[in-house]
Amino acid sequence: MPTVTIEGPPLTDINKKRTLTKEMTESAAKAYQLPKDVIVVVIKKNLPENVSVGGQLIIDRHHKKSE
Amino acid sequence: MPTVTIEGPPLTDINKKRTLTKEMTESAAKAYQLPKDVIVVVIKKNLPENVSVGGQLIIDRHHKKSE
Amino acid sequence: MPTVTIEGPPLTDINKKRTLTKEMTESAAKAYQLPKDVIVVVIKKNLPENVSVGGQLIIDRHHKKSE
Amino acid sequence: MPTVTIEGPPLTDINKKRTLTKEMTESAAKAYQLPKDVIVVVIKKNLPENVSVGGQLIIDRHHKKSE
Amino acid sequence: MPTVTIEGPPLTDINKKRTLTKEMTESAAKAYQLPKDVIVVVIKKNLPENVSVGGQLIIDRHHKKSE
Amino acid sequence: MPTVTIEGPPLTDINKKRTLTKEMTESAAKAYQLPKDVIVVVIKKNLPENVSVGGQLIIDRHHKKSE
Repeated sequence: MPTVTIEGPPLTDINKKRTLTKEMTESAAKAYQLPKDVIVVVIKKNLPENVSVGGQLIIDRHHKKSE
Repeated sequence: MPTVTIEGPPLTDINKKRTLTKEMTESAAKAYQLPKDVIVVVIKKNLPENVSVGGQLIIDRHHKKSE
Repeated sequence: MPTVTIEGPPLTDINKKRTLTKEMTESAAKAYQLPKDVIVVVIKKNLPENVSVGGQLIIDRHHKKSE
Repeated sequence: MPTVTIEGPPLTDINKKRTLTKEMTESAAKAYQLPKDVIVVVIKKNLPENVSVGGQLIIDRHHKKSE
Repeated sequence: MPTVTIEGPPLTDINKKRTLTKEMTESAAKAYQLPKDVIVVVIKKNLPENVSVGGQLIIDRHHKKSE
Repeated sequence: MPTVTIEGPPLTDINKKRTLTKEMTESAAKAYQLPKDVIVVVIKKNLPENVSVGGQLIIDRHHKKSE
C-alpha cells in the first residue's frame, strides 16, 4: 500500500487536487509496478506562518516582497 | 517513547477517541514491554477532499455512491 | 483508508508485530466504523542513538543506568 | 534539504514561532554543516483532545487538574 | 517548499527513483504554481514485515500466495 | 508532549546528535513553556539516492559537482 503525502501551501481548487492525486497515483503505480487501486495519496497544508526556510517564516518573506 | 499516530477521517465522538487511544496504548505497551506512561498516541484527521485511493478523491467516491 | 503508524525501539519478534498490528487494526476499525480491510498499520523503528527525551539521547540514558 | 518538524500544542504567539524556527534552523545548519538557506522548519499543532499520554487524552488530564 | 513523501516497498532500481521523483516534482510544481526548484521529494521504504493491511502483515500475505 | 523530528542526511558523529537534540529541546521547551522532560526529539536520515530537489536526486547532483 504505497502512500504519497504532499505537504504544501493551501490548495483551494478541488480540480487541482483531482489532477495532482491522479498524476501522483499513476507515477507511483508505474514505479512500484502495482495496480493504482492500492496507491493512497494524502494532501496536507501548512500555513505560511508555520513554515520557515533559512530561519525566516514564509509569512514574513511575503511581507518583505511587498515592501 | 513509542508514538502511535492515527490518520483517518474526522472522529467527532470524544468517547471514541478515549477508547481508541486507550486501546492503542495498551497494545503498544504490551508489544514494547514498556509502561503505559511512555506511550503517546496522536489522532490526526484528513478530509475526504484531501485523500485519494486509486487516483480518485474520497469526496468524489462518495458522490458516485449517491448517484 | 485510516493509517496507523507506530514508531518505537526495534521490535525483533515477528509475533509481537503480528499481535500489535492485528490489535491496532481492530481498534481502528471499531473507532472509524470501517471494515478491517481498509486499515493500514506501519511499524517504524528508531535507534536509541536517534531519540532524546528531555534533551538526553536514549543511548546515553542507558549508559547512565549501568553505572 | 534537512527538514525539522515540530508537533505540539497550539502556539498562538507569532514571535514565539519566529524565535523557535530561527533557533532550530541555526542548530540544524550547525549539525549538518549546511547553509541555513536549505533548512526547512514546519510547526504543526495537535489539539489536547487528539493526544494521549499513558492512555489518557491531554484534555482529560487538564480536567482532572482543575478538580 | 512543498514536500512529497512516498512510502512503499523497497525500490532498488535507481532509474525508477529518478523517474518517480521527476514526475512527482512536475505534478507538484504545476498544482502549486511554483518553480520546480522548491519541490522536495523523499522516498522511504517499509519492509513487508512492518506493514499490515486488514490486520495481516504483508510478509504473511506473500507466504500465503506461495502456498 | 511536543515532538521534534529532524530529517536530513546521515549524521555519523554522536556528539553532533547530542548537541542537536539538546539545543532543539531547549528551544522547544522555551517556546511551549513546558519542562524539558516532556520534549522528545527524533533524528531520521534520508540517503542521497532517496531525496530530490527540483526533480533531481541529491546523489546525481553530487555526481555533477565532481565533473
